[in-house]
Amino acid sequence: MKQGKFLTFEGVDGCGKSTQMRFLSEYLQEKGLECVVTREPGGCRISEQVREILLDVENKGMEDMTEALLYAAARVQHIEEVILPAIRAGKLVLCDRYIDSSVAYQGYGRQLGAEAILRINQYAANHCMPDLTFFFDYKPAKAFQRMNPHKEMDRLEQEGEDFYDRVYKGFREIWKANPARVRRIDVSGTKFETRDRMRALIDEVLAQW
Amino acid sequence: MKQGKFLTFEGVDGCGKSTQMRFLSEYLQEKGLECVVTREPGGCRISEQVREILLDVENKGMEDMTEALLYAAARVQHIEEVILPAIRAGKLVLCDRYIDSSVAYQGYGRQLGAEAILRINQYAANHCMPDLTFFFDYKPAKAFQRMNPHKEMDRLEQEGEDFYDRVYKGFREIWKANPARVRRIDVSGTKFETRDRMRALIDEVLAQW
Repeated sequence: MKQGKFLTFEGVDGCGKSTQMRFLSEYLQEKGLECVVTREPGGCRISEQVREILLDVENKGMEDMTEALLYAAARVQHIEEVILPAIRAGKLVLCDRYIDSSVAYQGYGRQLGAEAILRINQYAANHCMPDLTFFFDYKPAKAFQRMNPHKEMDRLEQEGEDFYDRVYKGFREIWKANPARVRRIDVSGTKFETRDRMRALIDEVLAQW
Repeated sequence: MKQGKFLTFEGVDGCGKSTQMRFLSEYLQEKGLECVVTREPGGCRISEQVREILLDVENKGMEDMTEALLYAAARVQHIEEVILPAIRAGKLVLCDRYIDSSVAYQGYGRQLGAEAILRINQYAANHCMPDLTFFFDYKPAKAFQRMNPHKEMDRLEQEGEDFYDRVYKGFREIWKANPARVRRIDVSGTKFETRDRMRALIDEVLAQW
């Protein structure tokens, strides 16, 4: 691996991607690879301020297009401040959610149209796309069970099952349309089984980089 | 006048548009016309939260595209929550800044391109454009003098004169390209002379509505 790479972790809420991202960053660091672990929306001061607006439970009346533009705005800042500098420094960037989440949540979930959301985001992001994306293929009904019932839910987590069904279908469409970039991760087993699958996959990919 | 109308007030910082908007709303209300006076960015809860991020002096590192998307996001919410409901209720909406400011500041001032900024905003705004726009033709050098030197300047007000020159030229281009919608206001006299010009102009327009 001669230059930095950009890896994203995608899937519906509760799919376990954040845990797997942590496992994988530990695995990569053990191999002596420098990792930057970040998330969207957020990852830097301005984007975290935007995140607060997006997740604020008082902002129930937020328009779908407002939401889509706020995610894109937070993304641009995050790319310029965090993602691109790290890639240029030869690091591996591991990012929890990216453009695929916007397409799945706003394009499919909110039904603003996958094409429109992709176009706005690719333009805003100046076509900065991941080298590799892990799609955690977890169905929303299961995702709902896995989420802690005692946890206070943010604005997006309060959405119903129909919304999450559309989001899940959106992720599957994105995976099918981008077979070279997006790798589907089977999460039907324990988190340690998934961790081991991830390790096998990243070893295979690193050998090619 | 059978239905609501949408009026916007545009020009560089310090051009006096806010004062003239207040004068005009008083004049219109004296005539028995119901007015909603609002501003961008802002005008409703979510958009005011976005405004805080935009004007925060600590956010000096904000990317131009982040800024453009935040303005568009705030605008969508403002349109749906404030502008369209008021127009539908037959009111006159008087708005301090709108899409023309985005085109002038981000398109011309930040040099992101007038066409690109107009396209993003018209798409986001679902093509909701003003019925009438007042362009306060005040040159930035004068605008700088008029601004209170003791006032703490926000993030945008800290920009230099070159930036404001481009913004001013942008407003003039917009005016020339949209002669039916945008009316140039001569502000070379006192604020009361400008007020009287505005009154004459609005009487002429109201007679046609």
